[in-house]
Amino acid sequence: MTDTPAPRPPGFGSDNVAGISPAILEALAAANEGPMPSYGADEISARVEARLSALFEREVSVLLVSTGTAANALALSVLTPPWGAVLCHPDSHIENDECGAPEFFTGGAKLVHVHGANAKIDPQALTQAAHRDRGDVHCVQPACVSITQATERGTLYSVDETAAIGALCREAGLGLHMDGARFANAVAALGASPAEMTWKAGVDILSFGATKNGALGVEAIVLFDPARAGELAFRRKRAGHLSSKMRFLAAQMDAYLDGDLWLANARHANAMAARLAAGLAGIAGVEIQGVVEANMLFVRLPAPICEGLLAQGFRFYTARWGAGVARLVTSFATSESDVDRLVAAARALG
Amino acid sequence: MTDTPAPRPPGFGSDNVAGISPAILEALAAANEGPMPSYGADEISARVEARLSALFEREVSVLLVSTGTAANALALSVLTPPWGAVLCHPDSHIENDECGAPEFFTGGAKLVHVHGANAKIDPQALTQAAHRDRGDVHCVQPACVSITQATERGTLYSVDETAAIGALCREAGLGLHMDGARFANAVAALGASPAEMTWKAGVDILSFGATKNGALGVEAIVLFDPARAGELAFRRKRAGHLSSKMRFLAAQMDAYLDGDLWLANARHANAMAARLAAGLAGIAGVEIQGVVEANMLFVRLPAPICEGLLAQGFRFYTARWGAGVARLVTSFATSESDVDRLVAAARALG
Amino acid sequence: MTDTPAPRPPGFGSDNVAGISPAILEALAAANEGPMPSYGADEISARVEARLSALFEREVSVLLVSTGTAANALALSVLTPPWGAVLCHPDSHIENDECGAPEFFTGGAKLVHVHGANAKIDPQALTQAAHRDRGDVHCVQPACVSITQATERGTLYSVDETAAIGALCREAGLGLHMDGARFANAVAALGASPAEMTWKAGVDILSFGATKNGALGVEAIVLFDPARAGELAFRRKRAGHLSSKMRFLAAQMDAYLDGDLWLANARHANAMAARLAAGLAGIAGVEIQGVVEANMLFVRLPAPICEGLLAQGFRFYTARWGAGVARLVTSFATSESDVDRLVAAARALG
Amino acid sequence: MTDTPAPRPPGFGSDNVAGISPAILEALAAANEGPMPSYGADEISARVEARLSALFEREVSVLLVSTGTAANALALSVLTPPWGAVLCHPDSHIENDECGAPEFFTGGAKLVHVHGANAKIDPQALTQAAHRDRGDVHCVQPACVSITQATERGTLYSVDETAAIGALCREAGLGLHMDGARFANAVAALGASPAEMTWKAGVDILSFGATKNGALGVEAIVLFDPARAGELAFRRKRAGHLSSKMRFLAAQMDAYLDGDLWLANARHANAMAARLAAGLAGIAGVEIQGVVEANMLFVRLPAPICEGLLAQGFRFYTARWGAGVARLVTSFATSESDVDRLVAAARALG
Repeated sequence: MTDTPAPRPPGFGSDNVAGISPAILEALAAANEGPMPSYGADEISARVEARLSALFEREVSVLLVSTGTAANALALSVLTPPWGAVLCHPDSHIENDECGAPEFFTGGAKLVHVHGANAKIDPQALTQAAHRDRGDVHCVQPACVSITQATERGTLYSVDETAAIGALCREAGLGLHMDGARFANAVAALGASPAEMTWKAGVDILSFGATKNGALGVEAIVLFDPARAGELAFRRKRAGHLSSKMRFLAAQMDAYLDGDLWLANARHANAMAARLAAGLAGIAGVEIQGVVEANMLFVRLPAPICEGLLAQGFRFYTARWGAGVARLVTSFATSESDVDRLVAAARALG
Repeated sequence: MTDTPAPRPPGFGSDNVAGISPAILEALAAANEGPMPSYGADEISARVEARLSALFEREVSVLLVSTGTAANALALSVLTPPWGAVLCHPDSHIENDECGAPEFFTGGAKLVHVHGANAKIDPQALTQAAHRDRGDVHCVQPACVSITQATERGTLYSVDETAAIGALCREAGLGLHMDGARFANAVAALGASPAEMTWKAGVDILSFGATKNGALGVEAIVLFDPARAGELAFRRKRAGHLSSKMRFLAAQMDAYLDGDLWLANARHANAMAARLAAGLAGIAGVEIQGVVEANMLFVRLPAPICEGLLAQGFRFYTARWGAGVARLVTSFATSESDVDRLVAAARALG
Repeated sequence: MTDTPAPRPPGFGSDNVAGISPAILEALAAANEGPMPSYGADEISARVEARLSALFEREVSVLLVSTGTAANALALSVLTPPWGAVLCHPDSHIENDECGAPEFFTGGAKLVHVHGANAKIDPQALTQAAHRDRGDVHCVQPACVSITQATERGTLYSVDETAAIGALCREAGLGLHMDGARFANAVAALGASPAEMTWKAGVDILSFGATKNGALGVEAIVLFDPARAGELAFRRKRAGHLSSKMRFLAAQMDAYLDGDLWLANARHANAMAARLAAGLAGIAGVEIQGVVEANMLFVRLPAPICEGLLAQGFRFYTARWGAGVARLVTSFATSESDVDRLVAAARALG
Repeated sequence: MTDTPAPRPPGFGSDNVAGISPAILEALAAANEGPMPSYGADEISARVEARLSALFEREVSVLLVSTGTAANALALSVLTPPWGAVLCHPDSHIENDECGAPEFFTGGAKLVHVHGANAKIDPQALTQAAHRDRGDVHCVQPACVSITQATERGTLYSVDETAAIGALCREAGLGLHMDGARFANAVAALGASPAEMTWKAGVDILSFGATKNGALGVEAIVLFDPARAGELAFRRKRAGHLSSKMRFLAAQMDAYLDGDLWLANARHANAMAARLAAGLAGIAGVEIQGVVEANMLFVRLPAPICEGLLAQGFRFYTARWGAGVARLVTSFATSESDVDRLVAAARALG
């Protein structure tokens, strides 16, 4: 009789260490029947566009790509000329984690920092930045704003906060992009409608993420102004992001929307983060940083706990957020027992 | 009692209208177990690199991306400075079908035509082009050559022909890229080893395609000089082509290589093209253009046949190759009955 | 008693081996009085814009830069998106002699060849090129046409020929750029008005050259649609072409226009080319290629004459235009005796 | 008898409102004799390279361009790949005043701020920035450092301070660029040798400015490693910065170096700034900001003085440096009476 090996300790490093949500995997198989037109001329692609139009209560244009970096950089490339400035938070993904993709896709635009607490742009700071150097030929020109929902710190812009930024953008003639790699988590947490959280609040283009929340790899660039779709289609092809067998990207997105899988997955991930926070909060020396709003928490761990957990094979990142602060991310695939196992291990090390 | 609808006439427009090879679809499901490191740090990605090293009889570096355009443009970006010229055939995919992706990824290099019969670069013309304007600061500088194997006309470079081009490149200090979107079809047809057809003949980087031959969407950039992998990794990320759930790209490639599925699929596609050619050749007024070497044929069809087939729902392109010339492409998914159906319909129209 | 050295044989390699026209040099000195606002806010710059508006019988916007390559590449950058095609003659300066500047400034647009006799675009070939691949996302999109006046072969577009191209551009929705590095020579030869030769014939932007015709280094980008000036101002600065002491660029252009110096210089250069052609035509074995219309001639020289002239120190280029064909360029600074000296030497070698 | 009009009040807005130093203007006339090879193949260009090699006590390669922005952006383009980061002070010219030229020329590299007092990079902050995210494929990679000498605040890096930064660069494998638009002012103030202040302290490329200090428009890109000159020559042409009549750029630089005109001009400008500081310091309510080291001072002026001076036609900027702070810049052309006139006017307004 042989022992079953103990399962590998769960990973909390990112929501992208998870695999594919079962319904999405099934949709890939279902889409695999016979020939189908390539490059997005298939019927599944058409259905996805219709579904997203329904979800957002407005006719939208949709371009599917396989990564979040592509979605963000392509979106920014139609909102910013090469001599433009993209106003963004210094903690944003486009600034820190895309190896300069926005600069590449825009032909060399500049990302300009707008500070604010909790990884969210402060409206007053934005007002200043939006009007800085306007018309001065020596200076890059503010062209658009990019905000992240949920943010890289797991925080959320309320509908009113987004609308306030949207109003500033309108006033200053700037486009507004929302990096929604974790948009589902934000919708699940806020309970507002996707329309309220985006175009009704002034968002022009949304990167609507699915990969971190259960897809193999698909993100929708959602254009609330379909007039920009033509330019974007050329930019997408030129960047190597027009998949020939597009039906399989579309099938993922279709299944993601079907029966609100996207919301169910996000609600689960958020609930797991809350459970994790609650469990850790009771351990001596552990401090939860800020409020846990979505599927991510930042927590200061005493060194023995932090090192002990890593030594036991739990995975999470600690380098970027100050001494002793760990980031723990949950996903649709995180189970209650995964959470409880980490909490128990932390308590035992405490 | 209802009739079963007649199946849709088969598509010969491109090999990318086919779906996913069953073994590859299964591999996606198999890879979907538990968390796995993201961005290519997973074990399947490691295995793919080892397998491709074995296949090419040399240590290679491999970067997986989801489209052929991305593979080609990234490969060229490390072989060409912005002021460089990529010498290529005027019929090549990089020149005609990538919406300027090579120009985008290289920072504005120029694609310079080198003519030759059958969509293949003529060595004598290449010799001239390779030495044109060298060192003249007013002129873009020849930096690399890109050839396609199999070509956009379905023809093949023999090992000797590739080696002759490789020798010219070495002599002139130029890099050599091979667009192998249909590399499998070429290997299947030539019977030479992948090593002989590439690095032993002077190829520096190969775009090793899988998408057209059974994958959902994955292409391997194979670097025969691993020293270039570092730069390419940054370029890939920056272009939005570093998939977070890389294991699923790797799983496709792994299954593609497993048991030589890639060769089996390509052999089948080639055989279907041969069958199609043989069938059509006997019809009055139909002229096969050139020799059919891989999975593609060009055929002059009398107007009634051409129009009749399209009217019946058969799909293929006719616009680019001269009056009355149709391109017919077969794939791993083309069945004998698909072929026979088209031949019968053509004969009936003849 | 020492001999005065014989003067160096005159150079016919290019009109840019000449120095500065005396009146322009004087204007530099005259502009050198006291402080003056920088970056083009000076009064000389304003005067130049007014003068060019008068010359072209229309309100124009003017941006001065120091080189023809900058003028051309900047002009094209506002007429072409990165996924656009610039339709141009394969012999054009932008294609052959700017080391990819148009590709750089446009963010990677493609220069697509439109053939035609005498280095001039053939309207029929243009019609085809203008409509090729329109709307096909896999292909770069025709965005503008660039023609050269006078051409790189010293030939001219008649007003009607330009207007025919202009009409095609309007019809196809393409912008029209004119590379007028030698515009003065064309105006002097054709006797038409600058307005007739440009915007009345459909030209959107003109690179109005002065450097080859007597300036130290200044070219005017003349926008017949001033709405584009805003964008271009940022692009110019970003390219390092906004001179701080702009008054000295403006002073050159001001003197160039004053008293029609530009036309006088060009008429002289053209006359010298005609004299050279007449002189050489009488020598046995010498063949003038085509008609000499501006300040440049192409002439087939018997080898002993060609080599003999070069050995004696006469300078001209021979490499690009076929075996034994030399290009001889005259300028405002070419004297009758320079011409006669070359003719005499050629005759003696014949 | 008519009155002579009172001369216009002198401008202190920038050193680029001045004209051309007389000796440089004469050199332009002297260079205007007969034909001369274009594009830098002339003898004056050769002499300039030899002279700068002598000045810097080392063989250098020199590329002349007409603006400081071009010099800086070209220099950075050979020190930084597109995925690189240029570490620079947030007050630097490349960050604030070049409309994104570094991003354009590098193909989209990112300028990353390194703070420090007095517009100078703090070595400790640099150490952190130099090692941040090294090797992480998601992040732009520190590639070079750019410092300004004299800085945008008129301050200086001592030789030791530069050498400390140079040592950090060597250690971290980063290139070091020095923006020397006002290098002459720095040399004049520090009394160190150009060699000590540059390559002996670890500088790889210097933008050696002449325009602000008496030229019409010329800056030398001085490469202490001549191996980079080849690449840079193509980049310069491609950017439209290869002047055809290069002799006139070279003639300016030649005269600038001749008899140490560059130092004499800079010493005068520095002395005028010191005189201005001394004069203003005695006026009640006026506060000189920091130490005046070169040709620029920042001074807090009571509102009546500031507004009064501007109303009288004195020119200077006030917007960027905090409430009530004016920047006053002197040049080779600023006279003692210019200075005294402003001081007297300020005193009268005080």
